[in-house]
Amino acid sequence: MSRFESISALLSQNRPGLTLPRDLYVSQEAFEFDTQVMLKSVWLYAGTVAHVKKPGDFFLFEVANNSIIVVRGKDMQVRAFYNSCRHRGARICQNNSGHSSRLTCPYHQWTYGLDGSLIVARGMVAGFSKADHGLVPVALENIGGLLFICMNDNPPPIDRVKKDIGEQIAVYDLERCKVAVQDNLIEDANWKLVMENNRECYHCGAGHPELIKILGTYGFGKGLPEDGEEDLVEDDVFDAMLHAKRDEWKSLGIYHDLIEFPGDWWHRVARLPLANGALTQSVDGKLACKKLIGPFKEPETSSLSVWTEPNSWHHFCCDHVVTFSLTPIGPDKTLLRTSWLVHEDAVEGVDYDPEHIAGLWRATNKQDSYFSSINHRGIATDGYRQGPYAVEEKLCGHFKDFYVEHGKAALERMRVA
Amino acid sequence: MSRFESISALLSQNRPGLTLPRDLYVSQEAFEFDTQVMLKSVWLYAGTVAHVKKPGDFFLFEVANNSIIVVRGKDMQVRAFYNSCRHRGARICQNNSGHSSRLTCPYHQWTYGLDGSLIVARGMVAGFSKADHGLVPVALENIGGLLFICMNDNPPPIDRVKKDIGEQIAVYDLERCKVAVQDNLIEDANWKLVMENNRECYHCGAGHPELIKILGTYGFGKGLPEDGEEDLVEDDVFDAMLHAKRDEWKSLGIYHDLIEFPGDWWHRVARLPLANGALTQSVDGKLACKKLIGPFKEPETSSLSVWTEPNSWHHFCCDHVVTFSLTPIGPDKTLLRTSWLVHEDAVEGVDYDPEHIAGLWRATNKQDSYFSSINHRGIATDGYRQGPYAVEEKLCGHFKDFYVEHGKAALERMRVA
Amino acid sequence: MSRFESISALLSQNRPGLTLPRDLYVSQEAFEFDTQVMLKSVWLYAGTVAHVKKPGDFFLFEVANNSIIVVRGKDMQVRAFYNSCRHRGARICQNNSGHSSRLTCPYHQWTYGLDGSLIVARGMVAGFSKADHGLVPVALENIGGLLFICMNDNPPPIDRVKKDIGEQIAVYDLERCKVAVQDNLIEDANWKLVMENNRECYHCGAGHPELIKILGTYGFGKGLPEDGEEDLVEDDVFDAMLHAKRDEWKSLGIYHDLIEFPGDWWHRVARLPLANGALTQSVDGKLACKKLIGPFKEPETSSLSVWTEPNSWHHFCCDHVVTFSLTPIGPDKTLLRTSWLVHEDAVEGVDYDPEHIAGLWRATNKQDSYFSSINHRGIATDGYRQGPYAVEEKLCGHFKDFYVEHGKAALERMRVA
Repeated sequence: MSRFESISALLSQNRPGLTLPRDLYVSQEAFEFDTQVMLKSVWLYAGTVAHVKKPGDFFLFEVANNSIIVVRGKDMQVRAFYNSCRHRGARICQNNSGHSSRLTCPYHQWTYGLDGSLIVARGMVAGFSKADHGLVPVALENIGGLLFICMNDNPPPIDRVKKDIGEQIAVYDLERCKVAVQDNLIEDANWKLVMENNRECYHCGAGHPELIKILGTYGFGKGLPEDGEEDLVEDDVFDAMLHAKRDEWKSLGIYHDLIEFPGDWWHRVARLPLANGALTQSVDGKLACKKLIGPFKEPETSSLSVWTEPNSWHHFCCDHVVTFSLTPIGPDKTLLRTSWLVHEDAVEGVDYDPEHIAGLWRATNKQDSYFSSINHRGIATDGYRQGPYAVEEKLCGHFKDFYVEHGKAALERMRVA
Repeated sequence: MSRFESISALLSQNRPGLTLPRDLYVSQEAFEFDTQVMLKSVWLYAGTVAHVKKPGDFFLFEVANNSIIVVRGKDMQVRAFYNSCRHRGARICQNNSGHSSRLTCPYHQWTYGLDGSLIVARGMVAGFSKADHGLVPVALENIGGLLFICMNDNPPPIDRVKKDIGEQIAVYDLERCKVAVQDNLIEDANWKLVMENNRECYHCGAGHPELIKILGTYGFGKGLPEDGEEDLVEDDVFDAMLHAKRDEWKSLGIYHDLIEFPGDWWHRVARLPLANGALTQSVDGKLACKKLIGPFKEPETSSLSVWTEPNSWHHFCCDHVVTFSLTPIGPDKTLLRTSWLVHEDAVEGVDYDPEHIAGLWRATNKQDSYFSSINHRGIATDGYRQGPYAVEEKLCGHFKDFYVEHGKAALERMRVA
Repeated sequence: MSRFESISALLSQNRPGLTLPRDLYVSQEAFEFDTQVMLKSVWLYAGTVAHVKKPGDFFLFEVANNSIIVVRGKDMQVRAFYNSCRHRGARICQNNSGHSSRLTCPYHQWTYGLDGSLIVARGMVAGFSKADHGLVPVALENIGGLLFICMNDNPPPIDRVKKDIGEQIAVYDLERCKVAVQDNLIEDANWKLVMENNRECYHCGAGHPELIKILGTYGFGKGLPEDGEEDLVEDDVFDAMLHAKRDEWKSLGIYHDLIEFPGDWWHRVARLPLANGALTQSVDGKLACKKLIGPFKEPETSSLSVWTEPNSWHHFCCDHVVTFSLTPIGPDKTLLRTSWLVHEDAVEGVDYDPEHIAGLWRATNKQDSYFSSINHRGIATDGYRQGPYAVEEKLCGHFKDFYVEHGKAALERMRVA
């Protein structure tokens, strides 16, 4: 345990309403703690069933040194395994995604079934047991088509998340969706800063001109401040808009109360009206795919948004779904993977244009990437002090406290073990 | 303190007249010690007032993780602040230099005055105090236009340096100069090796053909040695030349005795005649700027040279000033920033040619960069032994002992604290 | 010693017939242990006398931070010195190889003879002794033209290796060979994985189509396995072939029994027949050089192969010699240097074509480089388990155990010292 003593001290410096101590954001030690301890104690969002539509489809979910194969089996179940051959450890799958009826290691051709069982291993010594050399599994849960993994032999509870998210996204039927576009953006910032950036729209007014046209400016989008201006956010307009939409959503059977990180849980689900007449989350507000998904026959002008701690967010529109997973690569390197899903029968070039569907969030991601990078660089100086979150940034605080509490608990379990 | 125990042991291996132990030059630990302890205990040269002529002009001085904004206020005072917003820590200024009437963080538009005070912060919780959230200041001293900073709440004395350098460079009137050219050269060597390289001309004869034409070959510029040659340096010619110039300098009111690191102080000031009829420090010895600086009406064929421990040197000529600051970037990466200043009324293309003015030291810097890089690489091998300085290298020894003494003292203060 | 405590614990987790624990392959600590302790306790293969044919010829042999000059003296002896000037430590030779009648440091022109003695050092203080400042030597042994170095003041025994290898390769007369081609390939894998890759042909069937045409498929080259196939290797065909050749080799005076890592020694020597009518180790099996080497007047269709722990292998054919040295650069970076030698009188373009002579092993190296890189990446995951070597991989086990035993012994000597 002595190895993470300095981290333990830093975690204890956490204060309500303030950002974390510097070295939790920028140090190599914190990166090692995050990827070897903290993030292995929780569920991580990895991708969707639409990323592995057919048996043998796989993609890689990689966190620092760890590479995990997420693969659809012949029984249509999705499973996860470490991407390391049980012979001499070689990486089995090289590409980010692909299709294979079996998993064959390119080095010496040891071959595994899609369920991880070892099928072929030539020339082994007497007494060698194939049954003892299957791929090492990783826990996986399928929540209405969203796939969560946990690199822990005793994963924490997930049932309430499963129920709350599952029942609201079921209508979008991810099993009948396909991936239209996927972006892998590497950001020059610690993953926790990329998360905090996602958890507030205090920066949206000045930072995301495209986005606020579509999502509206409910309190946050007021542009550059005037001298002396520092009024608290007014949410009246937004509340009125929500109220007006409620009956329409009820008639469609898609109304639910806001779920916001209940108790010790780690999920938030909200249906939000779009602004300025937008039909969906596209740059111009026009439909991004002519073929609607789920039960929708006509455009439904809201988005169901889902956030989970500590690494994902998602927006479900009537014509497409956009989903984000975030994984640390280094102390100041983070992969943001954004996937846009459409109905499986939609035809590229006919029903949707990849540039149009990806345009809004691609622009927003790029802007956010800049903000996170300057956030990281500034924190690294000796002039950094733990700073106060604004009113609009309360969910940054939730993320940060989740991180600290789960980090402490994971260290405590190591201490006891 | 235990963290720098190995450094403490290495510092105690310092020997008079010998180079440092290997790991003080090449290890990651020494880099962390240098940038987190040693260099934060002393004054560092950052730039000149000519780099921030007008209110709102700023430049960044960066040492390893630290980024410092050096900015001219509306009251014409120059101040220094850490480049980190007090909200969530973002880097406020992105470019090496620029101009801004206020310092606004691009992330959430928190806005500071040029004196560091917080002016705008939208949407904060009740009880938030702007007065408590100004930019974190860094100590700054202006010595006749040369700006020194110290990243320590209790900076060491600087008064004698201020007096000795101030009174000799006053005549060059840096407030009426401007930056004509600036080079940022990243060298592949530890900063201490770049410093040692600057503190001797034992390598000039073979290494700097352009420079010795202008500065002369007083003992050092004898070219490649013949077999068996190893005579000590003869300085008679140089002494005779100095003597002849003395009366001329006295009549101009610019004569002073040599000041060479008196007592525990850290500055050297010397006026030196140029050689071979050179009028200034240019490749061909011709004037680099037609508009002379300070009180000079006619070319004055000497240079006033200033050296400070641990990171600067400067040459003041009648037509321009060239000034060098050096900052560590990594164990084997150092930024050498060279600035050429001319009279503020000089016109580029008319009074001076940027290529001509920068030519001599640009060539010399490049040659030195090569020497420092092979010095670093060779020291890294197990075959390195602490080696003996030559007679001409005595100022390398001064720098090295300054480094060791201040490093030890800084460690001792950490121990006590 | 406490510094390598974690390594000591990992070494004790070594198990017969299984690969090493993960962190011995991939961690920064293991890299430091390997290059600062383990590899400095053994003899390393550096190159051949053909790389330094004339007095003043030199090449650099570099292991992590260490750079060693291997140079031929005026007395035709080959010697090794650290590439670091005794003045201020600068790197003396910059290029991988070259020729110089003396070794002059480019920084301040200190000059050494080819025997390492200091000849010129200008301007030193009174009492300076040139005799005390010669280049720091590194132990070197010349075994029939193969040069081994040891970075240890008390090198381990080498006499039996000298005898066993020396008497078999003498016939190839390396002093009368020259280097025709040299490749420096940097592999993205730990050096121990590159070694293990060399010590088995379990991967050759599927991995090296060009190589198995020339070396044959004695048990290993059976291609991709069929379902359920896992028979042990059958060596009958190979044994019959060896038997048939024995009389021919005896008549040529080149027959010896197989030498396979006898006792605690670290060398293997085997003469092996080529397959499919190949005359030499070339892509098409045709002679790679018209001018034969040693005593051969007619093509002799076998190769004498030599392997040493922990970093070399060599193949001696009738028309050329190919020799491989391997050195760690980083935890996941390894330099494989491959040299092809021909008779010194052979003429490029007339007697040999560099592309043809290098073709077979260049292709094979590239394939192996891929295998080692995916091996390294897969081992880095948490899903890695120490895995079982196949029957054909027993020499991987020998290498691995050699590494562990010598590592433990070197640590034990540090503990005692």
